[in-house]
Amino acid sequence: MFNLGNLLQLTTFGESHGAAIGGVLQNFPAGITLDLQAVQKELDRRKPGQSPLVTQRKESDRVSFLSGIFEGKSTGMPIGFLIENDNHKSKDYEHLKDNFRPSHADFTYQQKFGIRDYNGGGRSSARETANWVVGGALARQILPENIEINAYVSSVGDIFCMKPYQDLDFNLTDTNAVRCPDIETAQKMMEKIKSIKKEGNTIGGTITCVIKNVPIGIGEPVFGKLQAELGKAMLSINACKGFEYGSGFCGAKMTGKEHNDLFNADFSTKTNLSGGIQGGISNGMDIYFRVAFKPVATLLQPQESFDVEGNPIALEGKGRHDPCVVPRAVPIVENLAAFVLADLYLVHQTRKNKF
Amino acid sequence: MFNLGNLLQLTTFGESHGAAIGGVLQNFPAGITLDLQAVQKELDRRKPGQSPLVTQRKESDRVSFLSGIFEGKSTGMPIGFLIENDNHKSKDYEHLKDNFRPSHADFTYQQKFGIRDYNGGGRSSARETANWVVGGALARQILPENIEINAYVSSVGDIFCMKPYQDLDFNLTDTNAVRCPDIETAQKMMEKIKSIKKEGNTIGGTITCVIKNVPIGIGEPVFGKLQAELGKAMLSINACKGFEYGSGFCGAKMTGKEHNDLFNADFSTKTNLSGGIQGGISNGMDIYFRVAFKPVATLLQPQESFDVEGNPIALEGKGRHDPCVVPRAVPIVENLAAFVLADLYLVHQTRKNKF
Amino acid sequence: MFNLGNLLQLTTFGESHGAAIGGVLQNFPAGITLDLQAVQKELDRRKPGQSPLVTQRKESDRVSFLSGIFEGKSTGMPIGFLIENDNHKSKDYEHLKDNFRPSHADFTYQQKFGIRDYNGGGRSSARETANWVVGGALARQILPENIEINAYVSSVGDIFCMKPYQDLDFNLTDTNAVRCPDIETAQKMMEKIKSIKKEGNTIGGTITCVIKNVPIGIGEPVFGKLQAELGKAMLSINACKGFEYGSGFCGAKMTGKEHNDLFNADFSTKTNLSGGIQGGISNGMDIYFRVAFKPVATLLQPQESFDVEGNPIALEGKGRHDPCVVPRAVPIVENLAAFVLADLYLVHQTRKNKF
Amino acid sequence: MFNLGNLLQLTTFGESHGAAIGGVLQNFPAGITLDLQAVQKELDRRKPGQSPLVTQRKESDRVSFLSGIFEGKSTGMPIGFLIENDNHKSKDYEHLKDNFRPSHADFTYQQKFGIRDYNGGGRSSARETANWVVGGALARQILPENIEINAYVSSVGDIFCMKPYQDLDFNLTDTNAVRCPDIETAQKMMEKIKSIKKEGNTIGGTITCVIKNVPIGIGEPVFGKLQAELGKAMLSINACKGFEYGSGFCGAKMTGKEHNDLFNADFSTKTNLSGGIQGGISNGMDIYFRVAFKPVATLLQPQESFDVEGNPIALEGKGRHDPCVVPRAVPIVENLAAFVLADLYLVHQTRKNKF
Repeated sequence: MFNLGNLLQLTTFGESHGAAIGGVLQNFPAGITLDLQAVQKELDRRKPGQSPLVTQRKESDRVSFLSGIFEGKSTGMPIGFLIENDNHKSKDYEHLKDNFRPSHADFTYQQKFGIRDYNGGGRSSARETANWVVGGALARQILPENIEINAYVSSVGDIFCMKPYQDLDFNLTDTNAVRCPDIETAQKMMEKIKSIKKEGNTIGGTITCVIKNVPIGIGEPVFGKLQAELGKAMLSINACKGFEYGSGFCGAKMTGKEHNDLFNADFSTKTNLSGGIQGGISNGMDIYFRVAFKPVATLLQPQESFDVEGNPIALEGKGRHDPCVVPRAVPIVENLAAFVLADLYLVHQTRKNKF
Repeated sequence: MFNLGNLLQLTTFGESHGAAIGGVLQNFPAGITLDLQAVQKELDRRKPGQSPLVTQRKESDRVSFLSGIFEGKSTGMPIGFLIENDNHKSKDYEHLKDNFRPSHADFTYQQKFGIRDYNGGGRSSARETANWVVGGALARQILPENIEINAYVSSVGDIFCMKPYQDLDFNLTDTNAVRCPDIETAQKMMEKIKSIKKEGNTIGGTITCVIKNVPIGIGEPVFGKLQAELGKAMLSINACKGFEYGSGFCGAKMTGKEHNDLFNADFSTKTNLSGGIQGGISNGMDIYFRVAFKPVATLLQPQESFDVEGNPIALEGKGRHDPCVVPRAVPIVENLAAFVLADLYLVHQTRKNKF
Repeated sequence: MFNLGNLLQLTTFGESHGAAIGGVLQNFPAGITLDLQAVQKELDRRKPGQSPLVTQRKESDRVSFLSGIFEGKSTGMPIGFLIENDNHKSKDYEHLKDNFRPSHADFTYQQKFGIRDYNGGGRSSARETANWVVGGALARQILPENIEINAYVSSVGDIFCMKPYQDLDFNLTDTNAVRCPDIETAQKMMEKIKSIKKEGNTIGGTITCVIKNVPIGIGEPVFGKLQAELGKAMLSINACKGFEYGSGFCGAKMTGKEHNDLFNADFSTKTNLSGGIQGGISNGMDIYFRVAFKPVATLLQPQESFDVEGNPIALEGKGRHDPCVVPRAVPIVENLAAFVLADLYLVHQTRKNKF
Repeated sequence: MFNLGNLLQLTTFGESHGAAIGGVLQNFPAGITLDLQAVQKELDRRKPGQSPLVTQRKESDRVSFLSGIFEGKSTGMPIGFLIENDNHKSKDYEHLKDNFRPSHADFTYQQKFGIRDYNGGGRSSARETANWVVGGALARQILPENIEINAYVSSVGDIFCMKPYQDLDFNLTDTNAVRCPDIETAQKMMEKIKSIKKEGNTIGGTITCVIKNVPIGIGEPVFGKLQAELGKAMLSINACKGFEYGSGFCGAKMTGKEHNDLFNADFSTKTNLSGGIQGGISNGMDIYFRVAFKPVATLLQPQESFDVEGNPIALEGKGRHDPCVVPRAVPIVENLAAFVLADLYLVHQTRKNKF
C-alpha cells in the first residue's frame, strides 16, 4: 500500500536532511544487463546546481546499489539503493520549527501526524523525486529498446512553446538550461526565470512528454488504465497541479467529428487526439501528455504568516531554492513515465494465454 | 491489484450486455446505518433516459445488495451487489464483430487480449461506472456527515460557466438537464447539445467538483497523495482527458507571490489556489478540481473506418448514445470523489498514535 | 487487501443465509477455453448431502457466471460469479441471536464488529469455501494440463492411512464417501464417523495433498514462498489447525544427513523430504503437504454456554451439520492449491527477461 | 506485492554477502516514542556467534535508521534501515558457482532466474531474517504494552520439552544457549547439538510461541485470518516445514466434545484448544502456536552432488554454519509474530464505526 507501481514496485524512504534517502525496487525481472551509468546520468540531470536557473544547492546525488545486481545483471531480487544527503544545513531550517510556510506541507504534516521533521521540508521535500528517477531509470531498462521517452518544458509562466511536438528536435532539449527544444522560446523562458529570480519570486510552468514506439496493448481496461496510472504518477510530483493527455482540456471543447481518430488501413490513426491510448490501453500511436506545475512556494522575499501560536510573523525563504521547478522536473517526468510503462508492460505479459 | 481504493476496496465486474454488472466493496467499517435509497438515488442520477439531452436507452439500473448488511447496518463483511442488464440488444452490435470503431477501445482490446466481447463495447462501456456510483455512494456514508461533495457541468464545448463556484447555488444543479447550476449558462449548454445531437454529432465538456468540510489530514505524503488518488480515479472514467485541481493549469502561469495562499491567524488561508490540498494532504479549505471529457466517439453519422481485414468501410453508430457525457458524469465524479476520500479517511485513522 | 492471490486475485462476498454468495476473479488471462462443467463438478464434490457421512442440508450450489467469458473463452476481464443460497432456514438460527456457541466465531465477530449476522454463522460459515472452489477450479485451467492435484483424507480421529502416497491410486479417492483412496482404511474411517455421528458428536481429521508435474521455478524467494502461500490458503479454511509440507513436523526430528535430498544427475532428487520446494520455489519434484482439521464445533448434544448477558444456558446444535469436515474439504484443498499455483505461475511469467 | 504485512508493510532487500541488507517499514503510526535499543537487542539475540551451539561467523549486525524518526519519535514516514555486512568472505563460496548444494535454493534460483548470486546463498540466506527482526521489533512498539510474546525451543531432534507452556518461566529462556526455559531439557538439547556438531551433522527442532493479552478482535474474517497471517509469516522463515496453532495436528484426532472450549461467564474459555483464535479473530485467550524447522542443509562432511554440467562431485560445507537453527530462530519467530499482530491491529482500528 502506497508504493509506486503494481507488479513492479518501488518503495522509498528518506527526508531531505536525514542521513540518506533511498528505496527498494521489487519484482524486477532477472537477467537484464543493467546500465548503471545511465541511471546516474538521469540523476545528474535532476540534481541542483546545474545552471544559474536552478537552485545552487550542492548535492552530489550519487546513487549506490546494494543488492539485486550480480556481475552487471539483475538477479530478480529486490534492488536496494541509497543516495546520501551530503549537504545537511539544518540550521537553515530552525526558524521553521514553530512556523508554517504558506503553500507548503508544514501545516498539513503537523496536523496530520502531530509531529514533523521540519528540516528542509523533511519528507515533503522534492528531494524524494531523486528516488523516483533511480527507480524509473532502472525500469526503463525493462522496456523494449526502441521506446523513446522525451519530456521538455513547454511553458514557463505565460511563455509557451507553440510548436507542435512533431516539429521539435528532442536532441536540443538538454542543450539549454531551461530544457525547451525550441531554442528561441527557450531563450525567452530563461530570461523570464532570471528576472523572476532577481525579484526573489518564483514562477510556474508546464512539461510535455512524448513517448514513441510503445507496443500496442499496454494498460489495463478498468482500474489500471494507462492514462490513470500516468496521471497518478505525475500528480504525485511536488507542485504538480494538473495532468492532461492527448487532446486534454482542449478536447473538451471539440465535437466527436473533429475529435475521432480515423483509422488508416494498417490501424494506425490519421490523427492522434486520443494521445496513443484508447480504452486505457496503448494503441501504438505516440503517447503524449502535459503536466502543470505551480510556482515554487519558497520566496526570497518576506511573506506574512503566523507561528504555531497564531502570532503574526514575516517569513522569508533562506537557503537556495529553485525559482522555477520545470527544468529539473523534466527527468522526473520522463523516468516516472518509464516506470509506469514498465510496470504495466510486465503485467501485460500475463494477460494473454500464451504460456 | 487493479481495484479501486487502497484500504476500502471496490472490485467490479461486468460487460455492458452481459447478464449483470456488479461488485464487491471490502473493508467497509461495521455498524454504519446504511441509507440504501440514497445509493439508488445516485444510480438514478447516472442512468440513461432522464432527459432529451442524454441517451434514450432504457436501463432500470436497480441495484440489489447481496451481503454485508444486516438489519440495515453494515456488518464489516464484504458488500456484494448486482445491477442486472435488462436491456440487452445484442443484435445492435453484430456489425461490430469484425469492425473497429474510431476512437473506441475495440481495436486495443482485440490486440491486447486476442478476443473481445463486442456487444455494446463489453467491458469498455461506461456502464461500468454504475458500479462505481454504488461503491462511492456507500463510501460516502463512512465520511463525516457535514462533508459536502458537489459536482456540476462547468463547460460544454466552448460554452463555459464563468462564475466562480462560490457564487453558485448547488441546489440548482439537478434542476436542469445539463446539470449546470448557473441557469442562464445551462440554457445555452442545452441548446448547444440539442443542435449537436441533431447533426448526429457529439460534444465534449468539463465538470467541476467542490468538496467542503473535509477534515484536515486526509491523504498520504508520497504515494497516496490526495490529488493523485483523485486524479487517478477521475482519469479512469471513460472519455476523461484531463484533471486539474486548485489553480490547475492556470497555476502554471503564475508567480509564487500570486499563487501562495497566505494564512489567517486560525490557519485557514486567505486564498485557496492550493485547492484545499498541501503536500498531498487536505488542509481544511475547499477541495476543488476540474475534469475534462472528450466528445463521445459514437456518431450517428457515417465515419470511414476499416474492418479487421483492412477493407475500407463506412461505420455509423446505431442504438442510443449520449450526444454529450458530462450531464450523466456528474454523479460519477461526485461518487468517485466520495470513494477516494473515504478510503484515505479510513487509512488516516491508523496514522497517528492514539490507540 | 484481504483477497486471495497476488496477481490472480479472488474477491468474495456472501453470508451463509443471505440471498447469494459469489466472487470476482481478476487478472485471469484471456483466450483460455473454459470448461465450466469442470468447475461445477468441483462444486458438486464439495456440496452437502452427498453421503450419509456428511450434512444432509440441501444446497444445489449451482454457480452462474456473469462476465469475463465470451463464446466459451476467457476475455481477460473480471469473471463475476454467483451461487444462490436456496436453502435459507433462518428460523433454525434465531436461538443464536443472543447466544455464543462454544468454539465458533459468534463471540469474536460480535466483539470485533459490534454486530453480526447470526444466521447459519453468517460470513463465518464454511459456505464461503464454495466461492474458493469456483475460483480454484477456474485457476486450474490456467496451469499446464499435465499438473495433477490430488488430495485425500489421510486420517479421521486416530485412524490413519499409513501407506505412503506413492502407493495409493488416486482414482479411488472419490469412490468412497470419506475420500480415502486406501479402501480398507476408508472403511474404518466411515465406521468411525458413523459412530461419532450417532453420539451427536464430531471428529477431526487430516487431508494430504499431492501435486505432480509442477514446472520448476514457481514461487517467490522471500515474501511469496510457495509453501507460505499454500500454508496461508489452507490455514484460511474453516477448522484448519495446522499445515506441514514435505517432511513437516517429522523433519524437525531428523538430522541433516538424513534429511538432505541428494541430487540425481538430472537434478531430480533421490529423496524428496523437501516436498518439492526449495528456497520457496518448486524444484520439479512432487509437492505434498498435510492439513489438520479440528472437529466441527456444532454438536447435536447439549453443551453448557452463556447468553450475551452472561446467564448460563444449554446449547444444542440444530439443523444439519457435518460430523466430520474432511471428506468435503478434499475439493477445497485441491482447488485452493490450484489457485495458489496459478497465481504464482502467472507471476513467474514476469520474473525472467525473455520479452 | 510480496511484502510483509498488509497495512503496516515491510519491504526488504539484500544478499548475504552484498554490501548491506535493509528495508523500509511503511505506514507506521506517527508519534510513537521508539526504543531503538530494544530493536538492537532483538537483533543481538539473532546474531551468530553468541554461543558454542551456533555458527561462529562474526556479524556485528548493527542496524542504522535512516528516516522516519525525529527526536526519538516516529513521524509516520517510512522508516528506512540498513544493516551492513561486515564479514564478506566471498572466496568461501567460489566453489558453489557451478555446483548446487543438496536441499538448498541454489538449483531452484538458478532455474527460475537463470542467474544467481551464489555467495553465501545470496538472497536465499537466512541473513534476510535480520531485516524481519528489525521490522518486527519496531512493530511491537505499536502494540499495547501489556502484550507479551514469548517463543522458546520446544524440541531439538527427539528431545522434547514436555511441560505445558503454562508451567514454564519465560524469564529462563535466554539464560541458556539453546533457549529452552525448562533447564533440564535445555541441558539435554545442548548436549545433543554438541554431539551432532562434532559429527559435522545438523539437527532440526521446533519452536513454540505464546502470546498473552492480545485484545479481542484482532484478525480479519476470511482472507486475513490471524492464524493464516501468522502461518504465512512463519512458513516464510528459512527451513520452516510446518505450522500449527492451538490444538494443531493433535486436534485432528479429537472429538468435538473434547475439543470445544466452553465459555466461562465472562466469556473467557475454560479450555483453550482454539489457541486464542476463533473464526480468524483473537478471542482474548492466549495465542500459541508451534513451528517446525528442518535440520540445516549445509553439512561439514562430504555429500554427493552434481555440478551444473551433471558431473558427480563431493560437496563439503565450508565456512561457519549453525548445527541447529532453532536457538537463533526464537527472536525471529517472536518478532514476526509481533509484526503480524501490529499489522492486523492497525487494520482493526478501521473496522468498526467509531469515528
